[in-house]
Amino acid sequence: MTKKIAIIGATGYTGSELVRLLTYHPEVEIVSITSETRKGEKFSDVHPQFLGICDLKLESINDLDKHDPDIVFLALPHGVSMDFVSKNHDKGYTIIDLSGDFRLNDKATYEEWYKKDHIFEQGFENAVYGLPELYRDQIKGSKLIANPGCFPTASILTMLPLAIEQVIETSNIIVDAKTGVTGAGIKASNVTHFPNVNDNFTAYGVSTHRHTIEIQERMTDCSSTDVSLLFTPHLLPVDRGILATVYLKPKGKTSQSTIDKLYQKHYENEPFVRYRHTIPQIKQVRGTNFCDVTAKYDSRTHTIIAIGAIDNLVKGAAGQAIQNMNIALGFSETLGLHQVPLQP
Amino acid sequence: MTKKIAIIGATGYTGSELVRLLTYHPEVEIVSITSETRKGEKFSDVHPQFLGICDLKLESINDLDKHDPDIVFLALPHGVSMDFVSKNHDKGYTIIDLSGDFRLNDKATYEEWYKKDHIFEQGFENAVYGLPELYRDQIKGSKLIANPGCFPTASILTMLPLAIEQVIETSNIIVDAKTGVTGAGIKASNVTHFPNVNDNFTAYGVSTHRHTIEIQERMTDCSSTDVSLLFTPHLLPVDRGILATVYLKPKGKTSQSTIDKLYQKHYENEPFVRYRHTIPQIKQVRGTNFCDVTAKYDSRTHTIIAIGAIDNLVKGAAGQAIQNMNIALGFSETLGLHQVPLQP
Amino acid sequence: MTKKIAIIGATGYTGSELVRLLTYHPEVEIVSITSETRKGEKFSDVHPQFLGICDLKLESINDLDKHDPDIVFLALPHGVSMDFVSKNHDKGYTIIDLSGDFRLNDKATYEEWYKKDHIFEQGFENAVYGLPELYRDQIKGSKLIANPGCFPTASILTMLPLAIEQVIETSNIIVDAKTGVTGAGIKASNVTHFPNVNDNFTAYGVSTHRHTIEIQERMTDCSSTDVSLLFTPHLLPVDRGILATVYLKPKGKTSQSTIDKLYQKHYENEPFVRYRHTIPQIKQVRGTNFCDVTAKYDSRTHTIIAIGAIDNLVKGAAGQAIQNMNIALGFSETLGLHQVPLQP
Amino acid sequence: MTKKIAIIGATGYTGSELVRLLTYHPEVEIVSITSETRKGEKFSDVHPQFLGICDLKLESINDLDKHDPDIVFLALPHGVSMDFVSKNHDKGYTIIDLSGDFRLNDKATYEEWYKKDHIFEQGFENAVYGLPELYRDQIKGSKLIANPGCFPTASILTMLPLAIEQVIETSNIIVDAKTGVTGAGIKASNVTHFPNVNDNFTAYGVSTHRHTIEIQERMTDCSSTDVSLLFTPHLLPVDRGILATVYLKPKGKTSQSTIDKLYQKHYENEPFVRYRHTIPQIKQVRGTNFCDVTAKYDSRTHTIIAIGAIDNLVKGAAGQAIQNMNIALGFSETLGLHQVPLQP
Repeated sequence: MTKKIAIIGATGYTGSELVRLLTYHPEVEIVSITSETRKGEKFSDVHPQFLGICDLKLESINDLDKHDPDIVFLALPHGVSMDFVSKNHDKGYTIIDLSGDFRLNDKATYEEWYKKDHIFEQGFENAVYGLPELYRDQIKGSKLIANPGCFPTASILTMLPLAIEQVIETSNIIVDAKTGVTGAGIKASNVTHFPNVNDNFTAYGVSTHRHTIEIQERMTDCSSTDVSLLFTPHLLPVDRGILATVYLKPKGKTSQSTIDKLYQKHYENEPFVRYRHTIPQIKQVRGTNFCDVTAKYDSRTHTIIAIGAIDNLVKGAAGQAIQNMNIALGFSETLGLHQVPLQP
Repeated sequence: MTKKIAIIGATGYTGSELVRLLTYHPEVEIVSITSETRKGEKFSDVHPQFLGICDLKLESINDLDKHDPDIVFLALPHGVSMDFVSKNHDKGYTIIDLSGDFRLNDKATYEEWYKKDHIFEQGFENAVYGLPELYRDQIKGSKLIANPGCFPTASILTMLPLAIEQVIETSNIIVDAKTGVTGAGIKASNVTHFPNVNDNFTAYGVSTHRHTIEIQERMTDCSSTDVSLLFTPHLLPVDRGILATVYLKPKGKTSQSTIDKLYQKHYENEPFVRYRHTIPQIKQVRGTNFCDVTAKYDSRTHTIIAIGAIDNLVKGAAGQAIQNMNIALGFSETLGLHQVPLQP
Repeated sequence: MTKKIAIIGATGYTGSELVRLLTYHPEVEIVSITSETRKGEKFSDVHPQFLGICDLKLESINDLDKHDPDIVFLALPHGVSMDFVSKNHDKGYTIIDLSGDFRLNDKATYEEWYKKDHIFEQGFENAVYGLPELYRDQIKGSKLIANPGCFPTASILTMLPLAIEQVIETSNIIVDAKTGVTGAGIKASNVTHFPNVNDNFTAYGVSTHRHTIEIQERMTDCSSTDVSLLFTPHLLPVDRGILATVYLKPKGKTSQSTIDKLYQKHYENEPFVRYRHTIPQIKQVRGTNFCDVTAKYDSRTHTIIAIGAIDNLVKGAAGQAIQNMNIALGFSETLGLHQVPLQP
Repeated sequence: MTKKIAIIGATGYTGSELVRLLTYHPEVEIVSITSETRKGEKFSDVHPQFLGICDLKLESINDLDKHDPDIVFLALPHGVSMDFVSKNHDKGYTIIDLSGDFRLNDKATYEEWYKKDHIFEQGFENAVYGLPELYRDQIKGSKLIANPGCFPTASILTMLPLAIEQVIETSNIIVDAKTGVTGAGIKASNVTHFPNVNDNFTAYGVSTHRHTIEIQERMTDCSSTDVSLLFTPHLLPVDRGILATVYLKPKGKTSQSTIDKLYQKHYENEPFVRYRHTIPQIKQVRGTNFCDVTAKYDSRTHTIIAIGAIDNLVKGAAGQAIQNMNIALGFSETLGLHQVPLQP
C-alpha cells in the first residue's frame, strides 16, 4: 500500500531533491509540501524545472496533521528542526531530519560546536544516526532518524572498513574535503556569487567546521577507540559533489591487496557503495545515491590515501533520507534510487 | 513482451545516453552494444559511471544478427551510418539512425552540405524524419527513422506553431543558437580543450553549418512555403543544453495573447514540450526529454522573439530516439522518459 | 605632470577595475577612493586581491574637494550619479560617469526606459557620449563624459563602419548579445547565485533592456537615418566578456571583400579595435581594452553577420573610461592600457 | 641597456605566458621565439590573443645563435630540454629551463621518478634551483637555472618558514594540492576534454607524481633534516591556479601568534609572497607572480594547516622564470612583474 509522505520546507535544495527523487519512487505519494514563506504558490513556481512534474500547492506546516502522513522529512535549517521535533515526536509518523540537530552524541557537544542552545535533549537519545552502512539495524522501526551531514557521509564511508577492522592509528586522521556550491544552500550570498566561485578555489571553516565533530564521534563509535580527526573543507566551482581525501596510518604492516580485500568484504553487499580501483570522480556519481571509494597504500611513507566521492544533495542528503525511509518502512532499500549518473 | 534493443557504437555520448535512458525503460532489454575499437571490454570500462549499472561486454557489429533485435539504434558518425543502413535495411528490425545521413530531402542536397558522397539514395525515400511533434503518424510502423539533429530539434520546436499556422514571413528567419560542448562529441580536440572553452564564448560554422539546411527543409515542409533561414551556432562553456533564440516577422497584426494561444493549442497535448511564460533555461531541462519554449512579441519592432531550450543529448539525440522507438513499437510515448531535470 | 584622480564608489566591480587599470598608468595618481558604507577601511579589505598593491584608506565623498582632483570617475549606480553631477558639475574637474544617467538624448527618453525621474536635465546637453571611435573630437576638453554601456560599446563597434557608410538597411537590425555575470554587478542575488548560472544559459530583459535605446540612438546618429533595432541579452556562465552577434541587411549588392575593406578602413588606426578574419572570442580580449570584430557576408540569405567581443569591465566600462580620460587630458590614448589578454 | 631574450618553444602555455609577461618588461627585447612545428608562422597565428601585440615570426632553433641572446628560456618538455642544455651550456648566455630536467639532486633520482635516462649528468651540478625565496644568492650570476615546478613552488613556499626554523616534525608531512587544467599543458587530451573536467573533480598521480621528490628534496635541504613527504594532486575545473593545503606537526608547544611572527619575519621583505590572515584564494593571485600564504594552528589536534596559492603559469612557471632572469641579470627583482590579479 502506498505510503504518505510530507516534506517540511520546500524552498531549499534539500526539499527540491526530495521531490525529484520521490518522483521515481513507486510506493509513496507526496501528500504535503510546506513552506511558510511561499504557501499558496505551486511547488513549480518556486522550482520552475518541475513545471508539469510537480505542481502541488504549498501548504502551511499547520495543515500537516490532517494528511496523516507515514513519514515526515524535515528539510529545515538546524535550530528550526529541533523545534518541530520537540512538538511532534510522538505523533506516530517517522521523522527523518535532514538538519544537524540530532546527529551528535549529546546536548553539550551540540552547544559547543553549533554555538546554540538545544531545546530538546531527549531527542539525542531517541534519534538514530541514519547511515545505513553503519546503523542499518537500528534504523529499522526508528521514529526519529538523524540524516547524516554531507561531509560526514563522504568521509566516514571513505574510511569505514579500516575503522571497523581497527587496522589504523586513530590519533591522527586527516580529512581534506572538497565540496560543490550547493552545499552552501539555495540562498544567494557573497560566498556563492558566481564571480567569487568561478575559476576560484579556497578553503574555509579551517579547524572549526561542525562536521568535524560529527565525523569524529562516528569514527570513535565504529572503531571502539578514541579518534582524533582534523577536517578541512574547500569550496569547488561545481554545483554538486564532495570528494574526500583521507590520510591514515596503518597500525602495522599492510599491503594494497590486504586493503582491497578489506574494503571489498565490507562493501560487496552494499547497494550504494562502489569500491573502485580507479580514482573516484564526483561526476561519476552526479545525481545518484552512490558513494564511490578507493584506497591506495603508499608504502614509501606507510600511509593509506582513501578517496571517496558522493553527490552532496543525494547520498549526502535527500537520497540517503529516502534510503532511510525505505529501511524504516520495510521497502527494498534501493526503491526509487536507481538513477544513473549524469555524466557528462 | 520485452523488446530487444541493440546499440551500434558504444563509445560516444549518444551511445552512453541511450544506455542511461534505457535503464529507466521497463519494456526493453539491451541485448547488444557494439564497438569495433573496444570490443571485449565492458561498457563500464569505457564509461566508468556505469560500474554496477551496465557491465555488458561490448561486441562486434558482426555479432548483431544472432541477437535478432527488434530495434537497432545507430550511434555512429555520419557517413558510417549510411553504410550500415545500405547493408541492413531489410533485416526486419527498425533502424533509428542518430546521424545526419538520412535527415535531408535528397542525395544532392546531402552531398552539397556534407561534402561527401551518399551511397544509399533509396534511404532518403524510406526514412521518416523522427520529430514526433511534426511526423508522429509517419513514425508509427516506420522501418527507418532519421533522428533529428540537436539544433534542428530545438530550432524547429521553438517556431513550429507559427510556421504551421502560417502567421510569419518565411523569407528572413534568423536562428541564433548556443550549444554545450557535448555537441562536439566525446573526442578530445582543441575546440573542446578545457582552457579553450572555460570562461570563453564564440560563434562557429557561420553560414555553413549543416543543420541550417535541415532546419530550412523542415520549416519549408511544415509551413508549405519556401523558407529562407539563417542559422548561427555558438559554443557555450557548459556540458549540455541548447538555447535557440529565433527572430521572426509576423505577417500582419498580432499580439502576445494571440501568440500564446497559438502555442498553447499546438503544444497542450505534447508530452515533452512545455510552453512557458518565463524564459526557458537550459538547466531546467538538463538530463530530460523536455523542450521548454516561450515566444514574446515585441510590438516596438514588430518582431517575435521565440526561445527554446533542450538537452542536446536527450531531446536532441538519445531521448528523442527512444521517444521514436516508443512510437514505432506502439508503447506509451513517454515510457522510460520521465526523468526530472537535474537542477541544480 | 602627474594628474590627480578620484574614484567615487569603491565597492563595485567598476571601482576595482579602475584601480586595477590605473595601477599600470604612469601619469596619474589616485588621491581618493570613496565609499560611504566602507569608509575608514582599506581598499584591500574590500577587494583582498589588492593586498600590498592598493591599501588606500576609503574616504567619504565629503572629503573629495580637499584633494583638488583633475578627474573624477563616478562608479555609482544610475540615479545616484545624476545627484553627484547636479551638485558638482561646475567644480572644474572633468567628470567621467560610468552609469547610464547621461548617455541618452534627453530626459523624456531616459524616464521612459529607466522608469525614474531625472533631476538634472542640463546634463544631457553638457555630456558627450564617451565612445572614442565615434566622438573622439568631442571628448577632448569635455567636462562631462557619459561612459557608454557595456552592451552598447560591443554592439556599436561591431557594426559602426556599416552604419557610417550607410550600406545597410536600418529598419530591422537584430543584436543578439551574450554577457558574463559581472555585468550584473558585485551584489549577490538569485540571478548570480552560482548554481543558477553554472552549466546554465538563458535570455533576459527581452524587448525591455535599457541598452536597446542607447544603441539605437547612437546608430541613428552615426548613420543619419532612423534606426529600428531589436536587442536581446543573454547570461553566460563566465565572469567577463560580451559577444554581440549582429544581423544586418545590406542595402544593395555586396561581397565579403567589400565589407572587409570597409571595416579595415575604419579601424586600421583605432588602437583598441582589432578587425579579425577569425571569429572573435571573449577570452581573447579578457582583461584588456580591445574590441575584436569580424563581419561575414552570407550571400545565400543576403545577410551580414557581424560579431564583436569585449571585456565588459574594461572596454565596456573602466578601460574605456581611462581611454576617455587620456583623450580628455591630452595623454597618449593608450597610456596605461597595454594589458595583454589573459588567455588561458 | 636592453637585454636580448630568446624563447625556445613557442606553442605551449609556458611560451605564451613568457611573451605575455615580457611585454610588460621595460628592459628586455624578445629577439627570437622558436618552434620547429610552426616556424614561419606568426606567434599570433598560434596564440590569436596576441594579434597586434606580438606578431613575431617563429624561427627554428637553428637560427638562435645569430641573435646572440643574453638569456634563453627553455619552454620545452622534459627530456628535450636536457638535449638543448647538453649542446649549448657553454655558449655564454644564461639558460633558464622551465622543464623538470635539472631540478633534482642527481641523475639516479631523476631516472627513478621520470622513468627516463638522463643524458647530461653534469647539469645537476651546474644548475641552481630557481626559487628566489630560498636560493636568491646562488641564482645571481648562474648560467643554468632550473625553474621550479608549479606544485613545488606552491608547496615549498607554503611551509618554508616552518622548515627553515626547524619547528616541525619532518617525518610525516602531507601536501594535498589542487591545480587548474593548464597544468596539463596546451595539448588536448581526454583528461582536459571539457565535459570530463567541468562540474567534476578528482585526484590523480596518487603516490607517484614527480613533484613529490622535488618538494621532498628541497624541504630536506632547507630544514637540514631528512623529510618524508606525501603529495597528492587533484584536478580543478579552473584554468589557472594551485592551492596547496599542507598538514604539519609542530615539534613542541606552539601558538597562532608564534607561527604568524615566524612567517612574517621570513616573508616581510619578499616582494611576491603575501602572508595573509584570510585564507588564500587562487583567483586573488590570478595572472600574477604572487604567492599568498596563511598558516593556522589547530590546538585541538596539535596540527598546523598551512595554505598557499599561486598562479601555476606565473609564479609556478613563466613569472618565476622572469624573476630569476631579473636576479641573474641584476635588474630589480620585480621588473615587469607588477601585474594586478584579475579578479573577477
